[in-house]
Amino acid sequence: MNEDTICAIATAQGGALGIIRVSGREAIAITARLLTLPPGAEPLNHRRSHTLVRGQICRHGEVVDDVLVSLFRAPHSYTGEESTEISCHGSPYILQEVMQLLIEQGCRMAQPGEYTRRAFLHGKMDLSQAEAVADLIASTSAATHRLAMNQMRGGFSRELSALRDRLLHFTSLIELELDFSDHEELEFADRTALCRLADEIASVLARLIHSFGVGNVLKNGVPVAIVGETNAGKSTLLNVLLNEERAIVSEIHGTTRDVIEDCVNIGGVTFRFIDTAGIRQTTDRIETLGIERTFQKIAQAQIVLWVIDSAEAREQFEALSPQLLPLTAGKQLILVFNKADVAPPAFFPDDRFTCIAVSAKNSGQIDLLEEKLVEAARLPELSQGDVIVTNVRHLEALTHAQASIHRVQQGLADGLSGDFLSQDIRECIYFLSDIVGEVTTDMVLENIFRNFCIGK
Amino acid sequence: MNEDTICAIATAQGGALGIIRVSGREAIAITARLLTLPPGAEPLNHRRSHTLVRGQICRHGEVVDDVLVSLFRAPHSYTGEESTEISCHGSPYILQEVMQLLIEQGCRMAQPGEYTRRAFLHGKMDLSQAEAVADLIASTSAATHRLAMNQMRGGFSRELSALRDRLLHFTSLIELELDFSDHEELEFADRTALCRLADEIASVLARLIHSFGVGNVLKNGVPVAIVGETNAGKSTLLNVLLNEERAIVSEIHGTTRDVIEDCVNIGGVTFRFIDTAGIRQTTDRIETLGIERTFQKIAQAQIVLWVIDSAEAREQFEALSPQLLPLTAGKQLILVFNKADVAPPAFFPDDRFTCIAVSAKNSGQIDLLEEKLVEAARLPELSQGDVIVTNVRHLEALTHAQASIHRVQQGLADGLSGDFLSQDIRECIYFLSDIVGEVTTDMVLENIFRNFCIGK
Repeated sequence: MNEDTICAIATAQGGALGIIRVSGREAIAITARLLTLPPGAEPLNHRRSHTLVRGQICRHGEVVDDVLVSLFRAPHSYTGEESTEISCHGSPYILQEVMQLLIEQGCRMAQPGEYTRRAFLHGKMDLSQAEAVADLIASTSAATHRLAMNQMRGGFSRELSALRDRLLHFTSLIELELDFSDHEELEFADRTALCRLADEIASVLARLIHSFGVGNVLKNGVPVAIVGETNAGKSTLLNVLLNEERAIVSEIHGTTRDVIEDCVNIGGVTFRFIDTAGIRQTTDRIETLGIERTFQKIAQAQIVLWVIDSAEAREQFEALSPQLLPLTAGKQLILVFNKADVAPPAFFPDDRFTCIAVSAKNSGQIDLLEEKLVEAARLPELSQGDVIVTNVRHLEALTHAQASIHRVQQGLADGLSGDFLSQDIRECIYFLSDIVGEVTTDMVLENIFRNFCIGK
Repeated sequence: MNEDTICAIATAQGGALGIIRVSGREAIAITARLLTLPPGAEPLNHRRSHTLVRGQICRHGEVVDDVLVSLFRAPHSYTGEESTEISCHGSPYILQEVMQLLIEQGCRMAQPGEYTRRAFLHGKMDLSQAEAVADLIASTSAATHRLAMNQMRGGFSRELSALRDRLLHFTSLIELELDFSDHEELEFADRTALCRLADEIASVLARLIHSFGVGNVLKNGVPVAIVGETNAGKSTLLNVLLNEERAIVSEIHGTTRDVIEDCVNIGGVTFRFIDTAGIRQTTDRIETLGIERTFQKIAQAQIVLWVIDSAEAREQFEALSPQLLPLTAGKQLILVFNKADVAPPAFFPDDRFTCIAVSAKNSGQIDLLEEKLVEAARLPELSQGDVIVTNVRHLEALTHAQASIHRVQQGLADGLSGDFLSQDIRECIYFLSDIVGEVTTDMVLENIFRNFCIGK
C-alpha cells in the first residue's frame, strides 16, 4: 500500500473558500510544520481527532493566509489515514502557495480519485461504493443523485453479496462431494435447490443487466435524435428546446463521461439531444454519406423527433419515410410539423404516428412537444431501494456472471458432474466479487480512479 | 443588528467538496435539526466549539448526503456568531437540496459579503480589513496577494489610526482651550507641535494618495495602449502578447472590479492591454472621431506601444507623430517596428525613442518586446509592511482628509483661533475614521459588501 502523504485542492476555483486535503502518515506532522499557532496554543500534533484550529500559514515570515485546519486521526478519516483539511480564502494564488509549501515539506500531489482509492484500500468502502462517489459528485438531478446515493450506501453491493454468499454455500457443498468422490452416489448439494438458485440468480442478473438501459438514460440523459430535411427548422427547434426558460445541464468536469453537449432538463427528465446532419432534399436521390451518419445516430436514440416543414408536409413525409420508418422501429417516433404559424400542415399521416404541429420560430406549441417528449421518455419511478446499474464496468462483470450462470443451468440440465459445475459457479462468484473490488487488479483500479476529479 | 440566521454555499461549483456556511443565533440549532447522527452520538448542540462531527442529512427519510459539520460557538467564529460549516460532496444537486432544507428550517440566503459584514459589525475586523477580504480572494499574483494581506492584517488601519490618535490628542487640547476661552492667552495645544503634526499628516496623506497609482496598477494591471495605423499589425501583436505560452489572467467573479479584458501576466507583472481603434491612414487628414477615441485611451495608459509597419516606417512615423507625441509626454512610449521579417525598418527615429523591430506574425523578437514592457512598467518592489492604497473609497476619504489638513495648515499659518482649527481637525479625523468603518453609514456598507461574492 502506498504510504506517501498526498495533498490536493478539493474545491473548484472561484469560491469564497478553498479547501486543501492532506492525507497519509505524515499529514498531521507536515501540516503542523506549516502552521503558526497563537502563542500558548496546543500544538496540532497533540490535538484530538475531529477538532478545528485557527492558525496562519507563512512563507519566509510573510503570512500567506489565515487558515482553519480540521484534524482527523486514522482510522477516523475519509481515507482511513491521518488527515487534515486546510480551509483557506478561495484565492487561486493562496491555494497554489499552500500547495507549494506542502510539497516542499514532503507531500505529493494527489492523483485523481486517490483519496477515494485510499478509502477503498483501507476498507472504508467497497469498490462499487467508491465508484458511486464520482457519480454522486456529478449528480445534477434527483434521479441521478438517488442512483449514486443508493449505490454508495451499498444497495447494489448488498444484493450481489447475498447472491454470491448463497452460491458460495453451494460450491462448498459441491466441493465437499468432490472430496468424497469415491462415494459416487453422494450428493451434499441438493441439485433441485441448486437449480432453483441458478434460476433465481439468472433472473436477478437479467434484471440488473436490463436496468443498465434505464441507468444509462438517467445518468446520461434520454437520447433524442432530431432528424429531418435541412430546411425543416431542425436547428431552430433544437435551440428553442435548449434555451427556453430552463437551465442547460452543464458539463461536469472530472466524471467518467465524455463531454455532454446539448443536454437539457425538461420536466425533471434529462434529455440528450443528438445532432444529426440535415438531410438535403434532392428530388432524385439522397446523398449517401449524410444519410448514413444520420442513420447511425438514429440507432443510438430512444426518441426520434422527425421535423417536417408543414408547407411541404406530404412531400417530405413521403420522401424520407421509406428510409426513416424502418430505422425507428422499437423507438419513440414523434413527427413534428414545423412552421405551423406560416401554414398549418395540409397533411397528417395516419394515426399510427404521434404528430404535433409547432412553430419553433415563435415557440408555438413547444410546451406540448415537451410534454410528448417527457411522455415518450417513459422513465420508471425510482424508490430509494431500487438497484440500477449505471456503470459499464459493472455491466461487463454482470454479463460475464450471467454467461457463467447459464452454463451452470445448462450443466445441471445435462446432469454434469460436480467438478464441472463447480468451475462455472466459481467463475460466476469471481465476477460478482469483481464488482465490489475483492478480486480487482491494480490496473483496473488505475482505470477506475483516473476518471475521478482531483481532491476526491 | 440583524440577527437572522443566514446560509450560503461558500465554494465554487465543480469541486470534490462543497461547503455550506450557516451563521446566526439559530445556526447550531437548525443544523442540529437537519443532522442525523450515529446512535448514541452526542447531539450537536451539546458539543464544544471547534469540533467536527460526521452525520447524514436526510429528506423524508432519504439520505441527501453524508456530511461533516464544523461547529463554531460565538464569539469564536468568522462572523463572531454561532456558526456551522457543512462539508458535502460537491454535487450541485446535493448543495441545492441542503440549502433548501436549511431555508425550510428558518435560514435565510445570505447576501453577497454578508458573512464579512457581520464579522465587521461584531468587531472581528475593521472596515478596511473587511474590504481586503474580497481583494484577498481575488488575488492572482504575489503582489496583489501581499497588498490584500497587508491591508487585512491591519497595516493600513494601523498607520491611519496612529495619525488619528495624535490628531485627537491635539483636538482635545484645543477644545480644552475653548472651555477656558475667557483666559485668552491660554494655549494648552502647542502650536509649533501642531504645525509639525499637520505637516507630517499632510505628507503621509500625500504619500498614501500617491500610492493609489501603484496600487491600482498592481490590482488592475499596468495599462498599455497599443496604437498605430490599421495595417501596421496591431491586432496580430496583441494576440501574440496575449496568447503566447502564458496564462491569461481570468476574470474573477465577485470582486469590485469591472470585467477586465485582455489582461496578461508577463514576467510577474499584470498588463492590461487597452484596445484602440486603428488609425486609418489617409494621406490628407486623419478621421477625427477615431483619433479622438484613441487619444482618450492613450490618456489612460501608462505605456504606449506605437506599432509601425517597417516597410512604411518613415511615412507612418511622420504622419502620426504630430498628434501622438504630445499625448505620450510623461508616459513610456515604445515604438514597435512590425513586419521586420518582410523588410527591416529602413528608418529609425532619433535615439530619444525606445525602438524595437519585431515580427508579430512569426513571434520574432517578441521576447525582447516583453522585456521592454516589464522594464517600462517599473513597478516598485513591495515588502510586507508597505501600505498601498488600492481602494477607490479609501482614496476618496484620504483626499477629503488631505483637504481638511491643508485647511488646518493654512489656519495655523494665518493664526486662526482654536475653534476654527478644531473644526477642520475634526473633519480630518472623521475621514480617517471613515476608512476603518467607525463612522460609516448603512448605505456605504451596503455598497461595499454587495460587491463581495456570496458565502463570504
